[in-house]
Amino acid sequence: MSEGIILVDPLPRTLDLIMEPDVRARLEKLGRLVISEDAPMSDAEVDDLLPETVLIFGQTALPRERLDRARKLKGVINVETNFLPNIDYQACQERGIWVLTPGSAFAAPVAEAAIGMAIDLARGITAADRDFRTGAEQYGLAANTETFRFHGAPVGIIGLGDLGKTLRDYIRPFRNKVKVFDPWLPDEIIERHDCQPASLDELLSTSQVVFVFAAVTGENQGFLGSREFALMKKGAAFLLMSRAAVVDFPAMLDAVRSGHIRAAVDVFPEEPVPADDPVRKMEGLLLSAHRTGGTVDALFSIGRMAVADAELILRGLPPQLCRRADPALASRLRSKPVSVT
Amino acid sequence: MSEGIILVDPLPRTLDLIMEPDVRARLEKLGRLVISEDAPMSDAEVDDLLPETVLIFGQTALPRERLDRARKLKGVINVETNFLPNIDYQACQERGIWVLTPGSAFAAPVAEAAIGMAIDLARGITAADRDFRTGAEQYGLAANTETFRFHGAPVGIIGLGDLGKTLRDYIRPFRNKVKVFDPWLPDEIIERHDCQPASLDELLSTSQVVFVFAAVTGENQGFLGSREFALMKKGAAFLLMSRAAVVDFPAMLDAVRSGHIRAAVDVFPEEPVPADDPVRKMEGLLLSAHRTGGTVDALFSIGRMAVADAELILRGLPPQLCRRADPALASRLRSKPVSVT
Amino acid sequence: MSEGIILVDPLPRTLDLIMEPDVRARLEKLGRLVISEDAPMSDAEVDDLLPETVLIFGQTALPRERLDRARKLKGVINVETNFLPNIDYQACQERGIWVLTPGSAFAAPVAEAAIGMAIDLARGITAADRDFRTGAEQYGLAANTETFRFHGAPVGIIGLGDLGKTLRDYIRPFRNKVKVFDPWLPDEIIERHDCQPASLDELLSTSQVVFVFAAVTGENQGFLGSREFALMKKGAAFLLMSRAAVVDFPAMLDAVRSGHIRAAVDVFPEEPVPADDPVRKMEGLLLSAHRTGGTVDALFSIGRMAVADAELILRGLPPQLCRRADPALASRLRSKPVSVT
Amino acid sequence: MSEGIILVDPLPRTLDLIMEPDVRARLEKLGRLVISEDAPMSDAEVDDLLPETVLIFGQTALPRERLDRARKLKGVINVETNFLPNIDYQACQERGIWVLTPGSAFAAPVAEAAIGMAIDLARGITAADRDFRTGAEQYGLAANTETFRFHGAPVGIIGLGDLGKTLRDYIRPFRNKVKVFDPWLPDEIIERHDCQPASLDELLSTSQVVFVFAAVTGENQGFLGSREFALMKKGAAFLLMSRAAVVDFPAMLDAVRSGHIRAAVDVFPEEPVPADDPVRKMEGLLLSAHRTGGTVDALFSIGRMAVADAELILRGLPPQLCRRADPALASRLRSKPVSVT
Repeated sequence: MSEGIILVDPLPRTLDLIMEPDVRARLEKLGRLVISEDAPMSDAEVDDLLPETVLIFGQTALPRERLDRARKLKGVINVETNFLPNIDYQACQERGIWVLTPGSAFAAPVAEAAIGMAIDLARGITAADRDFRTGAEQYGLAANTETFRFHGAPVGIIGLGDLGKTLRDYIRPFRNKVKVFDPWLPDEIIERHDCQPASLDELLSTSQVVFVFAAVTGENQGFLGSREFALMKKGAAFLLMSRAAVVDFPAMLDAVRSGHIRAAVDVFPEEPVPADDPVRKMEGLLLSAHRTGGTVDALFSIGRMAVADAELILRGLPPQLCRRADPALASRLRSKPVSVT
Repeated sequence: MSEGIILVDPLPRTLDLIMEPDVRARLEKLGRLVISEDAPMSDAEVDDLLPETVLIFGQTALPRERLDRARKLKGVINVETNFLPNIDYQACQERGIWVLTPGSAFAAPVAEAAIGMAIDLARGITAADRDFRTGAEQYGLAANTETFRFHGAPVGIIGLGDLGKTLRDYIRPFRNKVKVFDPWLPDEIIERHDCQPASLDELLSTSQVVFVFAAVTGENQGFLGSREFALMKKGAAFLLMSRAAVVDFPAMLDAVRSGHIRAAVDVFPEEPVPADDPVRKMEGLLLSAHRTGGTVDALFSIGRMAVADAELILRGLPPQLCRRADPALASRLRSKPVSVT
Repeated sequence: MSEGIILVDPLPRTLDLIMEPDVRARLEKLGRLVISEDAPMSDAEVDDLLPETVLIFGQTALPRERLDRARKLKGVINVETNFLPNIDYQACQERGIWVLTPGSAFAAPVAEAAIGMAIDLARGITAADRDFRTGAEQYGLAANTETFRFHGAPVGIIGLGDLGKTLRDYIRPFRNKVKVFDPWLPDEIIERHDCQPASLDELLSTSQVVFVFAAVTGENQGFLGSREFALMKKGAAFLLMSRAAVVDFPAMLDAVRSGHIRAAVDVFPEEPVPADDPVRKMEGLLLSAHRTGGTVDALFSIGRMAVADAELILRGLPPQLCRRADPALASRLRSKPVSVT
Repeated sequence: MSEGIILVDPLPRTLDLIMEPDVRARLEKLGRLVISEDAPMSDAEVDDLLPETVLIFGQTALPRERLDRARKLKGVINVETNFLPNIDYQACQERGIWVLTPGSAFAAPVAEAAIGMAIDLARGITAADRDFRTGAEQYGLAANTETFRFHGAPVGIIGLGDLGKTLRDYIRPFRNKVKVFDPWLPDEIIERHDCQPASLDELLSTSQVVFVFAAVTGENQGFLGSREFALMKKGAAFLLMSRAAVVDFPAMLDAVRSGHIRAAVDVFPEEPVPADDPVRKMEGLLLSAHRTGGTVDALFSIGRMAVADAELILRGLPPQLCRRADPALASRLRSKPVSVT
C-alpha cells in the first residue's frame, strides 16, 4: 500500500506479545517494517530512518527538531499506552501527525475483574472460601449475616473513562442506581450512560459499592482520605482499580481494618508489595497484584487497535480506536501512566 | 377483605425471617392469622381450623380426607419452597386449590453468586488473593498465564429453570455464546432466551464455562461423571450450584485435582462437609458452603411473593409469582428440595 | 413415539396455515393423525376416535360425558387461540388433561406494529406522507410543530399480558418511564418489568403515549370513556390494539376529532367497518383493519408452539409455551377471544 | 468564570431555537455575550471583538490572518452543524483552537424516525391507512400477504456514524442480524456494535431492510444505482435518510415503481420537491419532507451540547459532546452539510 517505513520500537512490549499472526500480517502490508525489540532503537538509526518513516509504533523520543525532518510521518502509536513527555505534542498537532494510544484495550479486562471483585465483596466469596479451608465455614443463612446483594445496590463510580463506561455496561442487568463523580465530564455525558452526576461526598455517603477508576493528576493525589472513607456507609465495598496515588493508602487500610468498609485493591503505592507488608494479613481486603489489566487478550487488543488505526491513517482517514494525545490534557497527567496496565 | 382463617405453619421458616413489616401488614389484611412457629401446628388444631381456612402458609400435611373438610381452602403456599409428598396434589387440583411455592426467590441470589464465581475461576481472583497472602503473588502478565476472559467465552448451562434464565440475563453484556442442555424444555424456549439447544456432550466439549443448575430426579443422579468431565476442555470452569446429586462427586474432584478443569461448588453430598474432607485443601476449587441462595433478601422475597399471590387467589385471580405444583412433574422429583436453598 | 390418535380439528385454521413442513413432520411423529379441515369433525367421528385419542388440536366440544370416555387424552390445544365454553375445564383439570392455547403467538407481531404506530403518531409519519401526496408537505422544523420524540416520552400500558410485556421489551432502548395499570397483576410483576404500577387515572393523566392491550371481561367494557379521555394530556397518543369493547368508541373519536388526542386503532366495534363510517375521513387517526396480529409468521408460530408443547405433554412433562386455561379466569372472560387475532 | 467575550453569530439558527432557558443561563456565566441574530455579524464588529473573544458560536469566517489576532480564542462551535470552507482548520489546529459541531444532535431523532419508517414499510402501516381511507382495506391475514416482520429480518446499514450507531441501539430488541458497509471504519468498530462488516454487494443482496446514512464525498455520489437496486431482494425495504446525492434517484424510483423494492425517503435531490414530481403519486414509497431531524428537541440538543463543551474548553479540558473538525476529513466532504438537518 505504502512505500514508507514503519518504525517499530515497541519496548517494553514486543510485537509477539501484542500482535496475533493475522494482525502482524496486516501490519506488514502497510509499509517496510524496521523493528527494534531487543533494545530501544538507537538515536542514530531513528535519525536515519525518519525522513522515510510514515508511522512509528512505540515511545520513540520526538522533539520538534526531529519532527522537522520527519516530513512523511503521519502517526505515532504508543503501544506502551502511556504518553511520556518525550514527544512534542504541540508540534505533532501543528503538522497533523496523529499521536495515539490504544490504552482502552485494558478497559474490558479490568472492568470484568472489577464486577467479579464487587460481587466477591458483596457476597463474601473469597472470604468464605478461606473460611472453608480452615474449617470455619458457615452454611446457608448463617453464612450471610454480613453479605449484601450486588443486584440493586447503589453504586458509585469515580472516573467515567473507558473503564468506567465498560463497567457501567457490564453491570446493567443488575439494575443498580449509579452515581458518577468525574470533574472532567459534563453532566450530559454522565446521563447518557444512565448514571447520575454527583459530588464526591454525595457519592461516597450513599453508595454501597464504590469503584475508583480515576487517573492521577497533579491536583488529585490522595484525594480519597480518612475524611472520605468516614463518609462511606458502614459495610460498603470500595474497589481501587486505578490509581493507587489517588488514595491515601494508610487511611484506606484503617477504614478496612476497623471493619467500617471492605475493599478490593489491584494497585499499590509500591509494587511489588514488600514481603512483610501488613496488607497480606488483613481481613476485609481482597488482594490483586496489579493483574486485572495485563491479560493475554488485552495485549493482543493493543496490537489490533494499533494496526486498525494505522490502516486508516495511511488512507488519510481519522483513527477510530485509539485515544489521541490531547496536549492540554497531557500536561495535567503526571508521568505515571494514565491508563491501566 | 376475607373473613377466613389464614393458617400459618411455616417451619422451618418463621414469619419474621420471610416477611418485612410492610409485607406482614399486607398478610394481616387477608384474614384472621393463626400462627404456629415454635412447633409444627398440631393435627388437632389443623383439623379444628380447616373448615374455615382459606389459605395455608406452610408444609402442613393435606391428605385427601383433610381436603374434603377444607371446603373454603383456596391455596397452599409452601414457604419452605419444597414440595413434599404429604399433600394430595391430585385432590388439590380437582378442587381448584392452588398449591404453590415461591422457590424462584432463590434464583437471583444464586445466579448473582454464580456469575461472581465464574469470573473468579476465569480470572483467578480467589486464588490470587490466596497467593498474595503467602507472598507468592505474581504481577501483571505473569499473573495471567492461566487466566481467561469471561467476556466472549463459550458458556454452557445445564438446566434452564428460573436460575438458569436469571443467569442468562445477568451475563448478557459479556456476549458469550450460550448453549443449553435441558431435556425438559423445548428448543423454542431455549432459543427465546438467546441460547442454543445442545446435547450434553456437545455442551461439555465446547464450553469454556459450564453452569450446573439441574434438579435431581430419579433418573438423572450422577449423570455428570468421569466420562463427562473428560469431555470438557482443558482449563474449563465447572460451577456446581445445584444439585450435588447430579454429579459423581469423586469424579469431579479427580478432574479438578488433575488440573483438567477448575470448579466452584456450592452444594455437597454431605453437609456440613466433614472436617477432614480433602476438598478443604484442594487447589483449583472455589468452596462455598451452600450459602449462595440463603440471603436475607431471598427470604424476604419468599414472603413477598407468597403474600402477593395470596392476595390474587383471594380475589379469584390466578397467582403470578409462585410456581404451581405439577402433579406430573412432582412425581419425578425426589424427596430432596427442588429449588435451591 | 406414541401409538395414540392425534385428533386434528383446527378450523377456522388449517394445518398448512399454522405449520411449516418441519413442524408438521414433528407432529406426525407424535401419533396417528386424524384430520378434519374441510368441516368441523362430526360428533360421530369424534365419539368414535376419543377412546384412543391422546391429543386434540382444535376447538372440539368436550363436555364431561365425552371426557369420561377419553381415557387416554392428555391435552387439548386450541389453535384458534380462543377458549370457548364448549369444554368442561373443571373436568379436564380433575383428570390432569392440559387445555392450552398458543395465543401468545400474536404478542410479538402486535407489539412490533404497536411501536411502529406509536412512533408514527409521535413523529407524524403517515400524516406527513398524506400531506406530501397532496402537495401540502412542510420541511424541517416547520414540519415538526406538532411532533414529539417517542424517546423518553412517558408511556402508559393498560394490560401487561404477553403483548404488553413484549412491547415493554421492544421499547427499552427508548428509555421511557413506563406506568402500568393492570388490576390482575401484583405490583411485584409490574416492577420486575421495569414499570411502575399506577392507577388508571394517574396513568392517563401523565402519559404521552398510552397503549391499550386489555382483555375484555364482564366488568370492564367501555371503561375508557369520555371522562378518561379528558384526563389525557393534550396531544398525547392513544393506541387501541386490543379490545375495541374496553373503549367507549364514540368518546374516543370525539377526543380525536377535537384535537385533544391522536390515536391509532387496530380493532373496531364492528368489523368490517361500514363503508360510510366517518372514521375513514378523520385526521389524527391512524387506521389499521385488525391486521397487526394476523401475520404469516404468527400463524406458523401457533403451530410451532402447539407441537412443541404436545411433545412435552406426551413425555409426561409440563407444557412450556402455551397458556393454560384457568377455569377461574375463563369464567371472567366473555365469549369473544381473549387474545389478539 | 471568564472575563472574555463570547461571540454569538448563530444564523441560520437563533439562540432561542437552540437553547432552553437553563442552558442559556449556563452560557451567560461563561463570559460576556455579544450576539448578532438579525444578520450575520459584520466584519468590522468581528474584527473589533476578536482580540478579547474566547469562544465563537456560529459560522463566522476565520481565515488565518484573523486567527492571528484572536489570541485568546479557545474554541469555535458551529451551531449550524456544517463545516464550511471559511475557516482555516489547519491554523486552528496549530493554535490549539477547538473547532466543533454538535451535529450528532440529529442522530437520535433521525434514528427514531428511521425505525418507525422501517416498521412501516415492513408491516404496511401507512399504506394500510391509505387503503382504509378509500374503503379498500383488508382484514387479518388477507392484509398481510405482502408484509414481513421487522423482528429478525436481516438488516443492512450503509454508514455507521452517530446516526447508524443510534439506530443499531434502537433496534437491538428486534434481534436482527446487522451487516454494515462503511469504508471509513475498521472492522473492529463495526463488530463492537454487534454488526458484521460486509461489502456493499453482500449487504444489498442479503438484507431485508437497508438503511442509508452515508455522508456525501467527492467520491461516492450516486454510488447506489440501478445495478445496486437490482441486487436487493424482492420486496426488501430501502430507507434513504441521508444523503440524497449518494443515490441515483431515478434508478431508485424505478426499483420502487416496478415493485422490486419499497422505500422510505427523507431527502430529495431538489427541496422543496416540485409540485408535479411523480414521487407524489407513487405506491411503495413512504414520503417524508426532510423532516426527521429538525425536531424541537434536536435543536435544543445542539445548544446543550455546545454549551457543555464550551464549559469544558474554558476549564482547559477537552470537549466531550461535539465532533471535532478533522482537516483531513473535512477536505473529503463536499460543501453540503455532513450531518442531517
